[in-house]
Amino acid sequence: MNRINLITLGVTDIVKSRAFYKGLGFKCYDDTANPPIIFFDNEGTKLELFPLDELVKDIDKNESLKTDRSVFNGITFAMNTKEKHEVDELMLLAESLGGEIVKKPETVFWGGYSGYFKDLDGYYWEVAYADSWEFDDQDMLMIQS
Amino acid sequence: MNRINLITLGVTDIVKSRAFYKGLGFKCYDDTANPPIIFFDNEGTKLELFPLDELVKDIDKNESLKTDRSVFNGITFAMNTKEKHEVDELMLLAESLGGEIVKKPETVFWGGYSGYFKDLDGYYWEVAYADSWEFDDQDMLMIQS
Repeated sequence: MNRINLITLGVTDIVKSRAFYKGLGFKCYDDTANPPIIFFDNEGTKLELFPLDELVKDIDKNESLKTDRSVFNGITFAMNTKEKHEVDELMLLAESLGGEIVKKPETVFWGGYSGYFKDLDGYYWEVAYADSWEFDDQDMLMIQS
Repeated sequence: MNRINLITLGVTDIVKSRAFYKGLGFKCYDDTANPPIIFFDNEGTKLELFPLDELVKDIDKNESLKTDRSVFNGITFAMNTKEKHEVDELMLLAESLGGEIVKKPETVFWGGYSGYFKDLDGYYWEVAYADSWEFDDQDMLMIQS
């Protein structure tokens, strides 16, 4: 794996944050009033906005993370795999290198298969697979227009 | 601006963190014993490692950030411009959209021109220009091999 597919920012007001990043020039096809999630179609790693509460729940159903901002800083990075078994392999690899598995890979509500690990400084990475994703010729996620 | 050029992780041990990310598959040309900074040549936004103390100083010479991890979470994103005047323009744009200027653009020790702002949730962005940078045909930074 030699790519970062997504940067997810946990935000308090997704509509206001969408307007902020659109104002800065980030391309977004979603203009709905109450979006559950926002993907920008930018160059480089795609920027994603997700309500902070939901992001905390995605990592930790018990939401113990929420109480301590020094434990979870609100940002996750994602490596999105093309095969499901790569999720398990990358998680084990991260653990073998000194990372900490925070959430073992499991099938999640949106149909994907996803886990989280922390790097040596406690930064969060999601490793995820979904049937529906499409990748460009640089193995980067394609955002639907 | 419709891109994220760099993700910088403030790390406590840059050599160990380099080994961690190389182990995960991230390509790195720098194998020196005491690197001041590390750039990976990955797909998408380039991953950068920088000592956390140095990153804090880069944002805030007074280092008041360091004392409160809920104020600065250790991660910055960078938009790297092709023209110096774009730095000032983007900083003012971010402010007009409700962002907060944390460090006004100034010429910095490595020869670039750089400032920082916070988005609506307090996430840090650097806006920077340097003569020496080269960009690919998608306006993404090229990392020297």
